[in-house]
This record gives sequence, C-alpha cells and structure tokens, in this order.
Amino acid sequence: MFSKKIINNLDKASWIRAMFEEGEKLSKKYGADKVYDFSLGNPYAEPPVEVMESLKKYILNSEKGIHRYMNNAGYPKVREKIAKFLQKQSNIELSANNVVMTVGAAGGLNVVLKAILNNEEEVIVFAPYFVEYNFYVDNHGGRTVVVSPDKSNFEPNLSDFQNSITKNTKALIINNPNNPTGVVYSEEKLKYIAEIIEKKEKEYGTTIFVISDQPYGEIVYDGTKVPSMFSIFNNAIIVNSFSKSLGLAGERIGYIAASSKIKDINLLMSALSFCNRTLGFVNAPGLFQKVVCDSLGAKIDIEEYKKRRDFLYENLTRIGFECVKPQGAFYLFPKALIDDDVEFVKRALKYNLLLVPGSGFGCPGYFRISYCVQFDMIENSISAFEKLAEEFNGN
Amino acid sequence: MFSKKIINNLDKASWIRAMFEEGEKLSKKYGADKVYDFSLGNPYAEPPVEVMESLKKYILNSEKGIHRYMNNAGYPKVREKIAKFLQKQSNIELSANNVVMTVGAAGGLNVVLKAILNNEEEVIVFAPYFVEYNFYVDNHGGRTVVVSPDKSNFEPNLSDFQNSITKNTKALIINNPNNPTGVVYSEEKLKYIAEIIEKKEKEYGTTIFVISDQPYGEIVYDGTKVPSMFSIFNNAIIVNSFSKSLGLAGERIGYIAASSKIKDINLLMSALSFCNRTLGFVNAPGLFQKVVCDSLGAKIDIEEYKKRRDFLYENLTRIGFECVKPQGAFYLFPKALIDDDVEFVKRALKYNLLLVPGSGFGCPGYFRISYCVQFDMIENSISAFEKLAEEFNGN
Repeated sequence: MFSKKIINNLDKASWIRAMFEEGEKLSKKYGADKVYDFSLGNPYAEPPVEVMESLKKYILNSEKGIHRYMNNAGYPKVREKIAKFLQKQSNIELSANNVVMTVGAAGGLNVVLKAILNNEEEVIVFAPYFVEYNFYVDNHGGRTVVVSPDKSNFEPNLSDFQNSITKNTKALIINNPNNPTGVVYSEEKLKYIAEIIEKKEKEYGTTIFVISDQPYGEIVYDGTKVPSMFSIFNNAIIVNSFSKSLGLAGERIGYIAASSKIKDINLLMSALSFCNRTLGFVNAPGLFQKVVCDSLGAKIDIEEYKKRRDFLYENLTRIGFECVKPQGAFYLFPKALIDDDVEFVKRALKYNLLLVPGSGFGCPGYFRISYCVQFDMIENSISAFEKLAEEFNGN
Repeated sequence: MFSKKIINNLDKASWIRAMFEEGEKLSKKYGADKVYDFSLGNPYAEPPVEVMESLKKYILNSEKGIHRYMNNAGYPKVREKIAKFLQKQSNIELSANNVVMTVGAAGGLNVVLKAILNNEEEVIVFAPYFVEYNFYVDNHGGRTVVVSPDKSNFEPNLSDFQNSITKNTKALIINNPNNPTGVVYSEEKLKYIAEIIEKKEKEYGTTIFVISDQPYGEIVYDGTKVPSMFSIFNNAIIVNSFSKSLGLAGERIGYIAASSKIKDINLLMSALSFCNRTLGFVNAPGLFQKVVCDSLGAKIDIEEYKKRRDFLYENLTRIGFECVKPQGAFYLFPKALIDDDVEFVKRALKYNLLLVPGSGFGCPGYFRISYCVQFDMIENSISAFEKLAEEFNGN
C-alpha cells in the first residue's frame, strides 16, 4: 500500500532517534532526573543573547512583511552578509549569489545532492559518519561509498579513499569537526585529500565536489582551528546550520555556500534554488533568516562544552574506556567493552544510560556519547558508567 | 557536471516565480507603486492578532527549550490540538498520532508522496493545477496524470477522471478551493468522485489515496462551505499550511493529517515521520508549531479579500474579460484575449501588469491574477487592464 523502499527502511531507522524515543519512555517511567540521555545532538543550552535580542527586535516592533515569501534562495541581504562572513575566513571572493538559505544542514544536503547527482553516481563518505547521509544520497538516485577510518585517530584511510574514487564519483562529503568522533581533520590532511581528488579528476576527466557538512565548525577546543574548505578545495560546497552554534536545532535554519571557483557556478546556484523550491522547502524559515544574520559570529558558550568534554573524558578513561580525545563538536566515541556495540548499548539501558551504537555510524565496536546536556546529568551518570564497566569486567 | 534532469527542468521553471522575479526588476526600474504585481500567492496582510500575541508570549518570556529538536512528527501537544480541531469538522476520531507537522504544504506533499509512491506509480491531478505537483511527484519516482476541466465551471471532467484511473494509480491530489481558479468543489461532486474511486479500487484490488491540498480551506466567500475530506473519502490524507490562512508563507509551517480509516494507519504515520526526517526537513520549525497551535481557528480578514475579489471581478468583466466567479482562495482565472496565453502575459508586461499564464497551470488560454495584494494597487491597475484590453480589441 505504501512505498516498499520506505517500509523496508523503517527497520534501518536511525539509532539516534530510536534511543531518543527510548529516553522519553524511560523518563516517563523513572523520572527525567534518573535517566542519562546521551542520545541526541540536541543542545541543552539556550541560544546566545544576540539571538534573543534579535528575536525581540522583530517581534516587539511587529516589523511588517517579515513572515511573507521571499526569493527561494532567501533574503538577498542575509545571503550577502553570510557571503562576506565566509569570504573573510577564506581567500576567495563571495557574494549573495554564492549563498542559498536552507532548512538546516539536512535540508541543505538534500538540495545539493538533488542538484548534482545523476542516477547511480557515487558519493564518498568517511566512516564513522552520520548515517542519514545514506538516505540523503539514495533520495536523489546516488550510491554511498564508505571509506574506512584509521581507528587509532579516526582520520580517514587515504589509500582506501584513493582506491574508492571511480569515474562515477560525483562528490565527497566531509564532516569536520566529525560527528560522532569529535575529531577535527587537519589542514595538512585536507590538502592531501585535495591532491588525491585533483589527480583523479584529471585521470577521469570528471568534477568531484567536496561537500563540507560543518555544523560543528564553531565548536572547537584547545585553540584548534577548522581549516577553510574554500581555501583548500576547488569545487567546495559548504553546507552549514545554526542548530549547534546558536542552539536553534528545532528552528531548521542553515545555508549552502558554493565556491566561486566552481565552473558554471551561476548554473549551479540556479539549480540549488530550484531544488530548494521543488523539494518542498520553498525557502528557509523567514524570521530565523533575519535572526541568524543579526547573530553571525555569535555562539553558545564553548567553555561550557569544554568543561563537559574534559569531565567525561577524564572519568571514562579512568573507568577504563578507550577513547580518542576530541578537539571539536560535542561527542565522545569510546570503544565498547564488548565487540557487539548494539548489545553493549542495550545492556547500558539497564543503568538508564542512553548511548548510540557505533553501528549507527558505520563503525561497529564503538558507541557515541552526546554531551550537549546538563552538567549535573553528566555528574550523576558517572556511577552508572562505573556499574556498566563493572558488569563487563566482572565477566 | 550537475544533475541533467534538474538542468533540463530549469527551463520549465515556475511561471509564477519567473513573474515574481520579473516584478522585482520592474519595481526597481519604475518604482514599486507603478508595477501591478499579481504574480505570487504571497499574502500582503500581516498575520492576525492571535499569531502576534503568541509570538510575543514565547519571545518575551524567553521560554526555555523552545528552539530545540522535538520528535520528527512535531510536538505531541500541537499535533493533538490539530487532531481535535479536525475531528470537530469531520465525523471520525483523530489523535496526535494522525498528525505530522511539516515545513508548509509543499513540504507535506513531498513527505506524503515519498511515503506512498513506488516507481512509475501514477498520481492524478485535476487541471488547472499547481504545476509544482509535477516536480513533487517526479521527486519520488511517480508519474503525474492530468484530468481536463469542464471550462464552463472549472470542475473536473469526471468521465475523463474515471478513464484515467489504472491499476498503477496510487493517489489523486485535490486542491480545494482550487489554485488558480478559486473554484470550490461541492460535496456532491466530491461524493461522486469518491464513488468512482471505490469502484476502481474494487476493480483493481488497489488502494487510491486522496491527498487533499487545502491551504485555502479557510478562505471562502458568500457562505460557501468546503466539505470535510475525512467525511467523504476513506483513504484521505489532508495536507495543510498556515501560509495563507495566517499569513505565514515565509515561515514554512503546515501539517499532514491522515484518516483513521486508512488500513495500517500506524505504519503510514511511521513512514511519514521517517520521510519528514530523511528528506531533510527533520521537523517543522519549532517556534511556529507552537504559534499556529495557539492560533488554530484564527484567520486573516476574509472580508478584505472579498472586497478585492468583488472589485476585480466586476471591473474585469466590465472591461470584457470572461471569468468564472470564484468562491474561494485569492485568485481569478480569466480567459486571455488571445489563444496564446504566454504571448498575452508578455504583452501585459508593457503596462507593468504581472500575470501568470494558464499554461503554468496546465490550462492554456487563461491567466491567473493573485489578488492577495494592497487594495490601492488593484484600484490603480484597472486602467492598465483597460489599456491591455483596448490593444487586443483594437486588433
């Protein structure tokens, strides 16, 4: 009666969302303060003051016309300001014409993939990765090709990457800082990736787009810098969201910015605008376009996240978990205490610990902790992690 | 370099949007007050007081957590309130589980089509129709089948409809009140359509969904009633938006409500929620979910629209245009003064009149006027319509 593919996919539905919904059930049963929900990247923090002030400005002044349709690409002034903001971080000229406002990064990724993919073309991703990419690529007729990680540091295995490029490769998605590991790929590594791509583009006479999914770009620690993708890659398309940096996950606001170096960039921008419209987004939510424009450069308090990362990392490694110390995002990706990460995560439920199995990121044997949560929940969870570890060490 | 299909489609891009963008150019050249832009269904009116008060409540109180992710289907309380609102209008039991909040009706339609369509399945539409439906159906592998209208009243030709149903028919989209004609299909007509569908479902052993796209459902005149689709059709899925009724077009907020009578309704609702997530909408914008919930039943001032309809209808028929008097929406769909509606609309540009050709709605020989605009613009436009008519009568 329904789409056979979708019904089949329901079983493969997101582990993250499944755990989030499990958490709601447990909260009802035991009380929210007894459940340690590390499942979803759903920032606990309220948006920064710039967002709150901007919202008040528009709502209190009852500014006229702000809830109407605008161009499918978004308000020209908003796009221009974002273009200039990105131009400062890179060394290329950008204008409003390089930017399309989107319904978050998930919306932006679908728009980009729709605009570039022909049937059966391939999109490479570096494991571990946000598995929703599989659905996004499939939505538009493409095939996902997964490159394995070096598990000592969770950087991509570059000889695997080189071998995975074919004449059908249309794009590489890079998520930096990475969800779920929190690892930030270095400029050196990215430049090496760019070299490989350029060599292969020449070999096959193709164009390979680098889609940079970077909603965690502002969330980095210890003085780490996230390299500018426009500076490193010729055919770079940035997809960004204010969900994490401004705590606006539920409002669905983000953008696509495409490099001026892309051949036929005007045609690409028309295609992006067209896909934004015909996929049913029509335009990014209007009020929040204006709000994020007023709040560019602002961000939630990174020190608060750093405090959480440090506390969890120290305690988990003390308890005996192996984990790469992340330089960005708000995730930890420790090794599970048994090979079967799904079983491990199920057994953690006994202690009201909600974790996401690494299998949900194309990387079995690990699990993800999302620490964008209240600090006291993290403090209270440590004894649960201790009990969980005891259970396995006792065996 | 890009998607071949999308690049080809750019030429078939929306007439409505093309005219809207033409209007922005003319406005820059001649001044906005010299341009009569009847192109886009972009309500001029500010949202009603209920919306403004609700926005103020949330923003001034800085209510915590309202910008975070929620369930992909939307806030349960919002969905429950909408379900009960719809239950009152129909005679079937509905709950939050029947409702998914969406990024407007365009988003909702894509989600529904993704959830139900298998490759090459057919979706029937009644001309004249919103041609974006073609793209939405194609996005998810379906084929659009167009049923011709009875041009004397712009109701669907039902013998054509009956003949167009095959074993591959998966859905019928009904847009009531209709864009672009403003015609409201009567209960009698809809019941007859329901009979045809039930007969064909039996004949082929299939299920045919009736997707009711009804963003103009609240905008009706002269005591006209829009029949409840849940009462008439067994497999009804309502897709609605607050773009028109609450003047929130740019905020992208709407919903899907599926009938409890649908077999496997729970599976359908899971599929809808899944598609809402994986198409990249993730969830409908959070703040506006709460705002429309507070404003259910409120609407923009219909008398203002009626005044526009009456004034335009009277003047255009006086000038000599043939037109069915609409009972709903905020469009008029008069006959062009020559057969070639595209040429007609191009010649109207000379008088700074921005109209949309009927070809853009699968109905050549006519043109659409969107009158959700300032009244003085309508008044000032009449002399332009007179000059346009003279040009053709003079020939």
